[in-house]
Amino acid sequence: MVKQERAARTRQALIQAAAAVFAEEGFVTASLSTISGRAGVSNGALHFHFANKSMLADAVEAAATEAVRRITEAAQARQGEPLQAVVDATHALMNGLAHDIVLRGGFELAGDNARRGESSLRAHWQRWVEDTLRRAQDEGALAEGVSWADGARIIVAATAGFEVLGGDDASWLSRQNITRFWEVILPSLAGRRDLHGLVSAGSKQQVNGSEQ
Amino acid sequence: MVKQERAARTRQALIQAAAAVFAEEGFVTASLSTISGRAGVSNGALHFHFANKSMLADAVEAAATEAVRRITEAAQARQGEPLQAVVDATHALMNGLAHDIVLRGGFELAGDNARRGESSLRAHWQRWVEDTLRRAQDEGALAEGVSWADGARIIVAATAGFEVLGGDDASWLSRQNITRFWEVILPSLAGRRDLHGLVSAGSKQQVNGSEQ
Repeated sequence: MVKQERAARTRQALIQAAAAVFAEEGFVTASLSTISGRAGVSNGALHFHFANKSMLADAVEAAATEAVRRITEAAQARQGEPLQAVVDATHALMNGLAHDIVLRGGFELAGDNARRGESSLRAHWQRWVEDTLRRAQDEGALAEGVSWADGARIIVAATAGFEVLGGDDASWLSRQNITRFWEVILPSLAGRRDLHGLVSAGSKQQVNGSEQ
Repeated sequence: MVKQERAARTRQALIQAAAAVFAEEGFVTASLSTISGRAGVSNGALHFHFANKSMLADAVEAAATEAVRRITEAAQARQGEPLQAVVDATHALMNGLAHDIVLRGGFELAGDNARRGESSLRAHWQRWVEDTLRRAQDEGALAEGVSWADGARIIVAATAGFEVLGGDDASWLSRQNITRFWEVILPSLAGRRDLHGLVSAGSKQQVNGSEQ
């Protein structure tokens, strides 16, 4: 049991170290010995857990996908209002990209030429935004003449932009930046009935939750 | 003179081939022999023009920066109205990312971990968008309560998103997609006085120009 715990901890340390090295150097340049060194384990221990670099990258992407799933599920569970759930989830996702190295590493891999097409991370996020905006449309919460696809296009493109630009300059990911983004575009997206109830900075539960 | 012309053509072919290979494989994986083979020249000819892969990447990025400069200058020359110039330039830039391999290759390199910090391509675009929105603000063309920085934030983030997402799925770069983006967000950004005169699909000169 102690041995299993230690193995799980080692595996976790390797995923964290790999995410950091992939984020800094890219998939091709990252070396397994840099990763094992950063994790504080031997090369043998690394190979016990991961047969090769691709499997390590798969594990980072799986962990990042799981983090995105947790973010979107939490936003949805807290918020009956679909548009507010999307606002909250973008805040949590950008905060995660700034502070959770596994999330950052996963998205860097998703954009890495060497791994292209192997990641479903951005697709996972896009699908959730689309589904949630479809619900908003069904509930009549969108502005007149704006479809769920219109809203999803702007939100998915802008969040992909924040993610990429935030890799070089973290201020793109700041709460202030994301809040101002929402303040400006919500009047275009939300129906008048719902607009005044929406909180661009994220709803209260969000502020007291994992976000802060 | 004929010899100089041939040298210039070879150099151009190498930049085009390098842009394509960098866009497909990323900087680290791209091999000089793949590039010279794709350009239809010998390895010796490649080395006559470019001492190493970094210098080839620099040349692709310089050519892409020049293409962005041409796009923004043309939009500005055609359009006195700053917001319309930004709309036109985004259409031309996205069209370029879909069809001009040098532009695509340059932006792929700008996002490549191995080249991080060496490219000024995204910064060049961002600066132009910011300067142009500052002019829009000075002319009172922005919506009440919206600053040039608010507008630039949305436009720079969304175009970075279209660029990145368009690398995997070209429909993100389509004229239809960009037009619909502008149709939805212009009412948030433009002052009421100017809104009805703005053409989300790009102004006429644009449609008859390099865009089509």
